[in-house]
Amino acid sequence: MSEAPRVDGARLWESLQQYARIGATPDGGVTRPIFSTAEREARALLIADCRALGLEVRVDAAANVVATRPGVAPALPAILLGSHLDSVPDGGRYDGAFGVLCALEVLRTLAQHDITTRHLVRLISFTGEEATPYGTSTFGSRAVSGRLTDVAANRLPDGRTVRDALAACGGDWERIAAAPGELGPVACFLEAHIEQGRRLEEAGQALAVVSAVCGIYRQRVAFVGEAGHAGTVVMGERRDALRAAARFVLAVGELPGTVAAADPATTATVGFLEVTPNSPNVIPGAVTAVTDLRSGDPSILSALVAGAASASEEAGAREGVRVSVSTVLDQAPVVFDAPVRSALAAAVRELGGDGRELPSGAGHDAVHLGAVAPAGMLFVRCAGGVSHNPAESITPEDAALAANALLRAVLALDA
Amino acid sequence: MSEAPRVDGARLWESLQQYARIGATPDGGVTRPIFSTAEREARALLIADCRALGLEVRVDAAANVVATRPGVAPALPAILLGSHLDSVPDGGRYDGAFGVLCALEVLRTLAQHDITTRHLVRLISFTGEEATPYGTSTFGSRAVSGRLTDVAANRLPDGRTVRDALAACGGDWERIAAAPGELGPVACFLEAHIEQGRRLEEAGQALAVVSAVCGIYRQRVAFVGEAGHAGTVVMGERRDALRAAARFVLAVGELPGTVAAADPATTATVGFLEVTPNSPNVIPGAVTAVTDLRSGDPSILSALVAGAASASEEAGAREGVRVSVSTVLDQAPVVFDAPVRSALAAAVRELGGDGRELPSGAGHDAVHLGAVAPAGMLFVRCAGGVSHNPAESITPEDAALAANALLRAVLALDA
Repeated sequence: MSEAPRVDGARLWESLQQYARIGATPDGGVTRPIFSTAEREARALLIADCRALGLEVRVDAAANVVATRPGVAPALPAILLGSHLDSVPDGGRYDGAFGVLCALEVLRTLAQHDITTRHLVRLISFTGEEATPYGTSTFGSRAVSGRLTDVAANRLPDGRTVRDALAACGGDWERIAAAPGELGPVACFLEAHIEQGRRLEEAGQALAVVSAVCGIYRQRVAFVGEAGHAGTVVMGERRDALRAAARFVLAVGELPGTVAAADPATTATVGFLEVTPNSPNVIPGAVTAVTDLRSGDPSILSALVAGAASASEEAGAREGVRVSVSTVLDQAPVVFDAPVRSALAAAVRELGGDGRELPSGAGHDAVHLGAVAPAGMLFVRCAGGVSHNPAESITPEDAALAANALLRAVLALDA
Repeated sequence: MSEAPRVDGARLWESLQQYARIGATPDGGVTRPIFSTAEREARALLIADCRALGLEVRVDAAANVVATRPGVAPALPAILLGSHLDSVPDGGRYDGAFGVLCALEVLRTLAQHDITTRHLVRLISFTGEEATPYGTSTFGSRAVSGRLTDVAANRLPDGRTVRDALAACGGDWERIAAAPGELGPVACFLEAHIEQGRRLEEAGQALAVVSAVCGIYRQRVAFVGEAGHAGTVVMGERRDALRAAARFVLAVGELPGTVAAADPATTATVGFLEVTPNSPNVIPGAVTAVTDLRSGDPSILSALVAGAASASEEAGAREGVRVSVSTVLDQAPVVFDAPVRSALAAAVRELGGDGRELPSGAGHDAVHLGAVAPAGMLFVRCAGGVSHNPAESITPEDAALAANALLRAVLALDA
């Protein structure tokens, strides 16, 4: 292949705008939550689009839409491409849909140019990637990775159980454990997604290869001092839990600079803090804080966790306050497959980009696929890093570049 | 008077224990809130005790119990002694009752020894000194100082209005504005009270003269930064409102040492802090804190207020967070009358004490009397500084010393 095929950028852009009309909000966004009428309508359009292309379409036990184009070597596992069509309420038009429609554009281009592949190439649109208050998130990708916990009896805002709503979309909770087998062997999984950050915009690059999805460690830190009258307990005799917590908050914010100065994807946040009794005339007797520590590098994440623990002890010791720490969440980083990352980076460079890698601070379907198969992701620049917001925006040129990079990576990995 | 008369310490102690049985709780404390059955029972006993002593007893419009012993110079204003008989729920037996029963013991001693005074000497037991959730505090002392706001329609936990409950205790809301006139001219007001702190205990002294009641300044400080995804907004681009608030909390705690190193009664506390949206995976967008600043010295209090304002600005500037400050409470310090303080200090020294002065971090009835007449207070040592607690404790010896000091001060101010 001396001259690589090109996707049809106008066709891709037209599809992006067509899907954005399903569940459209007045301000240009979409509201298309899992199992909603709008999400079902988007699934139906995707199934029709895939059938029009001559693909074999199935809906699996998790209601994932799976469309297959055969390869010439039937014994080989599938090259899998996709993302999700659901959105957060009042979300944007590109988070999720962009990855599904890039995959569709790759399949359309393969068909248009009669390109044969050795592996079969599969599009997958995962059910319900976004978190919901009723306990679902990355529903479809967890199912095909054998990682879905039992949420069948949970109820949606409309009163239906997850089990019933799943059935209405063509899924079947009774067969959910068989979803990985239904999907079959996977050679690799590729997902294109908007960056949800400003790093590409600031670097003047359209595309990046995702090196890893950050691990997240959350700890609950309880500071217990002594409540007392704000007017009669002298300053030197206080054991003020809020002063200890304040020292801790400041120390946590300094951790990324200390343990990973050069890594912008290492973060440390205290987002939750509760004071007891929280009365202006009472010295705080107790404070609970929750930290959120993230890094794509397991050793950096460990250093953050250790740093936060010693910062809490030091803060408590300074103020005479007892400290106890408990783990709330311990989600390991997922480092994407090196050959897949190389193929994506080579494709980006062929298209004029610098092939840089970026870690992802947010979770994605590819995290779960990465646990059972070689996986990789491509980030596309989005305006101002805005996401989960009607103002989500990308350009037609960047969209076409991403689809072309995905196409090239598919062909390279197939070879 | 070469040989000063002495109070009867055993009689005082017996009265203290007798009143402590009214509204007694199983753990040795008392529950005697304003207008309760127990509080009415305590009033009745006090009225009986005063009548048994031949005093003229009245209940004024605020239901304060006022008992008068005539002087030989009828044109002179009254020497007024007293405190309150109500308590917080599950409170101690000495907060309030100690001051009333010291006053009673002084009158009993004057009667026992047939001592004539130039001024008339009046005992006053103020209605409802303690704060309540239904908006009353220092009810009776505000009334006689012309400072009571309209709480007539507020409802007690039992459903009665303050107006009705007041009437059941012999008061009359319709005449409340006339309460200062009813009390008549006051030469001075003296109140004995437990210290509610550990300073006397630590100094090995039984008594102190109260120099002033601290002023209280409360400010609400709002920090407004930018909420954002804890995993995708890089550390250097954050405007974290909680980090700004943490800087502020630490700076506020350092203010007393900076502006009033030698004054243990200068305090600065952040007791209230609220984080928005307060979710572990969201960078805090806004934080509201309330400071409580106290000092008995108006210039120190001003320095605390200015220091807290500049600390909030500096904290906001460091974190790129907007700050706005509003005043919630601005209660000036009350510095007690110098001649009254001198008389009390001289009496303490005659009884073997060092005559030291201490400011009070908590409010008292004497604050309101001090606004309309010369006033002073005497603190008595209490075990561990514990108050508003069944464990409140003083010794019979210290109680007698306090009553003797009060008696001597009365005779000196009368002369």
